[in-house]
Amino acid sequence: MSADPIAELVTLFARLPGVGERTASRLAFYVLGQDPMYARALGGALSSIHDRVRRCVVCGNYGADERCLVCTDPRRDPTVLCVVARVPDLAAIERSGTFRGRYHVLHGLLAPLDGIGPEDLPLDPLARRAREDGVAEVIVATPLSVEGEATALYVAEVLRPLGVRVSRIASGVPHGGELELTDQVTLGRALEGRKAL
Amino acid sequence: MSADPIAELVTLFARLPGVGERTASRLAFYVLGQDPMYARALGGALSSIHDRVRRCVVCGNYGADERCLVCTDPRRDPTVLCVVARVPDLAAIERSGTFRGRYHVLHGLLAPLDGIGPEDLPLDPLARRAREDGVAEVIVATPLSVEGEATALYVAEVLRPLGVRVSRIASGVPHGGELELTDQVTLGRALEGRKAL
Repeated sequence: MSADPIAELVTLFARLPGVGERTASRLAFYVLGQDPMYARALGGALSSIHDRVRRCVVCGNYGADERCLVCTDPRRDPTVLCVVARVPDLAAIERSGTFRGRYHVLHGLLAPLDGIGPEDLPLDPLARRAREDGVAEVIVATPLSVEGEATALYVAEVLRPLGVRVSRIASGVPHGGELELTDQVTLGRALEGRKAL
Repeated sequence: MSADPIAELVTLFARLPGVGERTASRLAFYVLGQDPMYARALGGALSSIHDRVRRCVVCGNYGADERCLVCTDPRRDPTVLCVVARVPDLAAIERSGTFRGRYHVLHGLLAPLDGIGPEDLPLDPLARRAREDGVAEVIVATPLSVEGEATALYVAEVLRPLGVRVSRIASGVPHGGELELTDQVTLGRALEGRKAL
């Protein structure tokens, strides 16, 4: 440990995303000004988080047990899988309340420039689930970015020979979005993906 | 501990200033995605911060020992004291590199509506330092807010009978500030506090 515990705490806070040196300093002094119970509670929760949170052996979602709450919920449809890049994406879909199937979390995206290839993603387990669990459809909900799109195409290539229907979430103008303020790629996709009225 | 360690961590993160529920969630997932060493380091630093950081018995500044680094630095002028509300204010003055005296940290401001009166601030120790340590001047650097001004006036009342010169930091248009965008109170103070050229 360094000689200056405050500077040490500031440095560690500053590694959090969106937290610069100034914010980190403000957080450290805030913690010092609060009841010591708070610092100990947050410290304990952080120290133990990796021991208390496991990846579901089936889908990769976070949970307390070997299988996550979605995979063990008998009301969830096991024949529809939604592939996401990260657990927060899964959580966002859960909040929308519009999906009753199960998930497969890649914990990453194909990124050849960063040395992340197909072998670094859990695609074999995905194919195994598709083959063995009577999966009828896989919805690929990776981000609408270059890497997300490339990963979606790759997932489709892996699954199509298995006779599984593979779909991609729609891309278009978001709810409440102004056309005037929408970027040209999104507008192009919205036109291309038009539906009959 | 709750059944959901991630929700617990999010709740604790969300108590930090400027961190809402969404940011707290992002921070928790970030920590989960990093090497467990990081979560344990930040957790340990937080859990131990109140044990490792003490208030200086002389001035109230934070430090590792009974007396802080400013109070034990023989090059600091003991005859000029700067009164601040909080340690981050002291740190800001230190960063400016323009003050070579010592400090007195109030750890608060007079706030009658919140039940904080003069007896809740270390004003007796300040008067004792002024009497016994040959203090010639006390610069009051509390914030330029209503509570900061009221506290400054009170500090002056306490010290003036002791024959100590009491001064207040200047208030005016900040460095680089546009007059057009400066509020009327600040402009009024800048005019009132004008200096001969």
